[in-house]
Amino acid sequence: MATLKDVARESGLTVGTVSRVLNNRGYISEETRRKVYAVMRELNYQPNEMARSLSKQKSNTIGVIVPHIVHPYFSKLISNLEQAAYELKYKILLFNSKGKEEKEEEYIEMCKSNRVAAVILCSGSFHTEQFRNLDFPLITIERFLDEGIAGIECDNYRGGILAAEHLIERGCRHLLHIGGISGLPMPADKRKQGFEKVCQKYGAQYNEVEPSQAYYDDMHYYPIICQALDQYPETDGIFASSDLIAAQAIQVCAMKGIDVPGSMKIIGFDDVNVAALTTPGITTIRQPVKEMAEAAVAMAVKAAAGNAVPATSMFPVTLVERGSTGR
Amino acid sequence: MATLKDVARESGLTVGTVSRVLNNRGYISEETRRKVYAVMRELNYQPNEMARSLSKQKSNTIGVIVPHIVHPYFSKLISNLEQAAYELKYKILLFNSKGKEEKEEEYIEMCKSNRVAAVILCSGSFHTEQFRNLDFPLITIERFLDEGIAGIECDNYRGGILAAEHLIERGCRHLLHIGGISGLPMPADKRKQGFEKVCQKYGAQYNEVEPSQAYYDDMHYYPIICQALDQYPETDGIFASSDLIAAQAIQVCAMKGIDVPGSMKIIGFDDVNVAALTTPGITTIRQPVKEMAEAAVAMAVKAAAGNAVPATSMFPVTLVERGSTGR
Repeated sequence: MATLKDVARESGLTVGTVSRVLNNRGYISEETRRKVYAVMRELNYQPNEMARSLSKQKSNTIGVIVPHIVHPYFSKLISNLEQAAYELKYKILLFNSKGKEEKEEEYIEMCKSNRVAAVILCSGSFHTEQFRNLDFPLITIERFLDEGIAGIECDNYRGGILAAEHLIERGCRHLLHIGGISGLPMPADKRKQGFEKVCQKYGAQYNEVEPSQAYYDDMHYYPIICQALDQYPETDGIFASSDLIAAQAIQVCAMKGIDVPGSMKIIGFDDVNVAALTTPGITTIRQPVKEMAEAAVAMAVKAAAGNAVPATSMFPVTLVERGSTGR
Repeated sequence: MATLKDVARESGLTVGTVSRVLNNRGYISEETRRKVYAVMRELNYQPNEMARSLSKQKSNTIGVIVPHIVHPYFSKLISNLEQAAYELKYKILLFNSKGKEEKEEEYIEMCKSNRVAAVILCSGSFHTEQFRNLDFPLITIERFLDEGIAGIECDNYRGGILAAEHLIERGCRHLLHIGGISGLPMPADKRKQGFEKVCQKYGAQYNEVEPSQAYYDDMHYYPIICQALDQYPETDGIFASSDLIAAQAIQVCAMKGIDVPGSMKIIGFDDVNVAALTTPGITTIRQPVKEMAEAAVAMAVKAAAGNAVPATSMFPVTLVERGSTGR
């Protein structure tokens, strides 16, 4: 089996240079990099990550647990986590919990037995007892966990304020908020608090509905949107707690013959893919998902090396205007 | 450190039963499973996957390389691959190549050094020289590779036929096909051949445009759609080679004041998330992504164990009707 020395000799470089290519350290010219890879292939040299990981009892792998992969928020998050990990020479082991406790339990065990460096958790029905005795750091994104774990969230409260202010500024007087998951406390619940505060301040009427977990699991919100519009027919502005819900609200309005944005203005949350793909496009509150993902990976790596990381980090949100709240 | 025996003794079960729980073999009652996991947590028992993998020189991990994660086709594919892998007790190492050769090269090296059991490749600008001397099987989905590798695709030719027949049946006489990536041969190119055959058979006029790689990378097709509709203003039916393109075509029509489906009928391909989220919803050719993902994972596992697998597998497609081609 070819060794690092063989690769160095064949490529006419020092062992140090080859090692730097492999570990992506320091400046390496594109030409050198390609040469080393070419010789590695020629000699069928394989740096054994597994043996290396075993000797230090940690792999350069980060476990990522999400409740959905196809949900546009999580696919955007996963994409940015993968990119951030790649830049720090880490790899992503991806797990889809579907919000199910027994899967989450199993995945945490899988992460343990694979000696991951850290876990980034975006799925939150965990029992806290599971988090005892973990020998890797846990970073959460937009979830609460009451053990001493680093949490990353966006400024959900401010997002609720921005959304309500925008609808009122555009002339809406009968607002409807389609909220997070009823019965599952999440940082996102603060969106509702910001929304309420603004409605009260301006004396705007408002109603709220909270979808059950089943809607979230199926990503199918039509029944609750239809029901809410039947119950509150005076509604002229909707603040949906995700762009996914906002897209479905536009469809329900089309079905009911309600013109968006003429007779109904709709604002979402997240600023994911789908917000730019509907007709009209969705005005939304943008979460800086890229920066949040980069922070999560950087913290995971730092915490795995024994460094202290902030217990909570809150990222700013911004209003992104599209057609769904047009004048 | 706790051993398997300790877990067995503490939970009052045999070592065989505990081992079966850990390896998910045979029938295990929910109660037993939970008890074993509880004791494992209590004793902080960690089956060492890494050591086990090293001893057999293979991990129970499958590398998945995609050119996009946020693209709705790939997020659906990844989600189904993760589920299929989970059911066979495999884990997914996820890599986003962004279609870049140097990233693909690096990822294949990472997969080698992590001793993956197999790689499922959904990204295709690889040089074939890279595939020499691989000591794991490679399965491709909707990509060509000219080494002796198992390839999975849907019946793209039939999809093109179904799409054109549906548009013509709905009264379209001036068809436009927005195709795959120009200059990058892919199984999806056969959609165009099926489309052309039907147009010729019925004497329907048709035009075709092929977006460059840059459109695919950015997932932003507006300029080429606008240009095509300016160039071919008589167009009354569009066959887009993905639902993502179809969603953008609906937006472009709205911008130009063209009523969909009244004056323009649009059909997509894939049947992903976004097809059901636009207004109107997108009529499309459905790829059985779940079944294709299950086949890919099953083949990966079989091939890794040294068994022969089919060199090519073609899955059937079906027409799914939504509002974008309504009467």
